[in-house]
Amino acid sequence: MSKPLILVTNDDGFYAPGIEALTEVAKKFGQVIKIAPDKPQSGMGHAITINSTLRIQKMHESEEFSAYQCTGTPVDCVKIALDVVLDRKPDLIISGINHGSNASINVIYSGTMSAALEGYIEGVPSIGFSLLDHSIEADFTAAKHFAEKVIKQALAHEGKNYCLNVNIPRLNHTLIKGIKVCRQAHAKWQEEFDKRQDPSGQDYYWLTGHFVPFEDHQEDTDLWALENGYVSIVPVSYDLTHFKVLEEITSWNL
Amino acid sequence: MSKPLILVTNDDGFYAPGIEALTEVAKKFGQVIKIAPDKPQSGMGHAITINSTLRIQKMHESEEFSAYQCTGTPVDCVKIALDVVLDRKPDLIISGINHGSNASINVIYSGTMSAALEGYIEGVPSIGFSLLDHSIEADFTAAKHFAEKVIKQALAHEGKNYCLNVNIPRLNHTLIKGIKVCRQAHAKWQEEFDKRQDPSGQDYYWLTGHFVPFEDHQEDTDLWALENGYVSIVPVSYDLTHFKVLEEITSWNL
Repeated sequence: MSKPLILVTNDDGFYAPGIEALTEVAKKFGQVIKIAPDKPQSGMGHAITINSTLRIQKMHESEEFSAYQCTGTPVDCVKIALDVVLDRKPDLIISGINHGSNASINVIYSGTMSAALEGYIEGVPSIGFSLLDHSIEADFTAAKHFAEKVIKQALAHEGKNYCLNVNIPRLNHTLIKGIKVCRQAHAKWQEEFDKRQDPSGQDYYWLTGHFVPFEDHQEDTDLWALENGYVSIVPVSYDLTHFKVLEEITSWNL
Repeated sequence: MSKPLILVTNDDGFYAPGIEALTEVAKKFGQVIKIAPDKPQSGMGHAITINSTLRIQKMHESEEFSAYQCTGTPVDCVKIALDVVLDRKPDLIISGINHGSNASINVIYSGTMSAALEGYIEGVPSIGFSLLDHSIEADFTAAKHFAEKVIKQALAHEGKNYCLNVNIPRLNHTLIKGIKVCRQAHAKWQEEFDKRQDPSGQDYYWLTGHFVPFEDHQEDTDLWALENGYVSIVPVSYDLTHFKVLEEITSWNL
């Protein structure tokens, strides 16, 4: 039987330490193809490039490991990998390791998680990994340890399709209590735009904000798991139908 | 009682005929603020601008109607409207009318629907409208008729929070049979990248593709409704948790 084929991508860009760490882990399991954006693409959500063109550049090629840069978004990377670069469907797509949390509502804005979700839509089991540390010098030791554990289980359960959102707390890995499968905690970012003036006196704005939970941290949520020293795994869906609201508005006079 | 305050945005850009049509409808119901991207932003999904700055420009101001252009994405428009431009929370956010379908999996890639979803996350009832006609010269008569109907019902049910994905078939409005509340049909886009060479002989790619349904069109889906002459309404959620997969992977050895 041939080795598993694993596609690795991210949103922090080709040279981010996080994807370097994830690629190292992936190489323990099979043949690895890395295709990542040629520049940081954080906060790109599920954006795709439809009004301009894409280019890819081969950066490395060997039997066990090839690497490409792509000029597009994280979702573009997955699309062009599956249609143009790969000669067979990968066994697994992994995205990250993101520098910073993608727990709770962050999943919606995250290029890392949108790349994983795109893999799932395409019928490939996909996992996004994020470490709760924005620093470029973040310590990925614990994240690598748990990424290996999750990837091992994913490859052991072939034939299933899913998208997992894995977040790793910023703790020494000996202090992490284990892994919890959770639901997405309900929360939002409260904007506080920072208004400034350019040298010609014109206003411009920087997006800033703070995190606002909508509920006390329930034990079944990702935020609870992370705050209590666990790695969180939230399975993600591309069916956005809100069935409860669906029932409610059937009584509207439409 | 003061008139409803309605925020109008889109992803096709400030000057698109679709937002002109939606603004006309909105003016029948209350005070309208239009804040739209200064350039087309189709396919931007839930992208936000975090690594660069935003500007807004006032284009029109009167008691009943103000209009602004924003340099950001559709989601940026909603964020900056709520934090910077508006002095009170709007009663309703409407997005569109999009030139082209946002039914089924398109909801994930759509800037129009991501703007509406952002409004919902912010606690404001939000509705995205899309007409199944990409043309810049599309006839919005039917779309306006049904948008008015849906907005009237939305304002009559104040105090609820939701996000609705409304798609209008490309039919004369006398031929449209009515409105159906539906679930999102499961489908994907199958990529077919179009490979070309630039004048220096370097490869580049255009994203193209065709639509692939994952299921026969069930009567409870948006695709069925649209193909059978109905306007479709799918309520959308920002909780992406896939509860069925959640149950399945609790048996993994994690």
